[in-house]
Amino acid sequence: MPRIAIDILLKREILDPQGRAVEQALPGLGYREASEVRVGKHLELVVDAQGDELAEQVDRMCQDFLTNPVIESYRWRVIGDDERADA
Amino acid sequence: MPRIAIDILLKREILDPQGRAVEQALPGLGYREASEVRVGKHLELVVDAQGDELAEQVDRMCQDFLTNPVIESYRWRVIGDDERADA
Repeated sequence: MPRIAIDILLKREILDPQGRAVEQALPGLGYREASEVRVGKHLELVVDAQGDELAEQVDRMCQDFLTNPVIESYRWRVIGDDERADA
Repeated sequence: MPRIAIDILLKREILDPQGRAVEQALPGLGYREASEVRVGKHLELVVDAQGDELAEQVDRMCQDFLTNPVIESYRWRVIGDDERADA
């Protein structure tokens, strides 16, 4: 069964206080090279569907439940076991 | 300058209450096909470095500041503008 990774961020025009906080903290920690920091959510889950049905399921899940589509946008992809963030 | 996506999840052996909550909510919303739900953080940022220096910067940032390495693991990758979660 396919393993799905979903990334959720606030839309670009929405202020991201958490991203701003990280960005402002970095120079004091010796990282002057980072900018445009945005912080959001990452989900990994197994979905028992394939092809068009998989895409329909995941998009519906994202739009109706996992995100607030007024202020957030998302992107999802199928990942292998070696791409898991907790691999 | 390269744009970096960082995914952070609790390690597999650590209980993820947020993932559990999402997983338990899904059936009631008509999604019986999802399992093994884990919820973590997703960051996107621009880092002014290349090659080995880039990898060293991002790994150090993740290990020293963005994650708690005792309970969290992370994975990062360089992304194009069309791969941004807020594209």
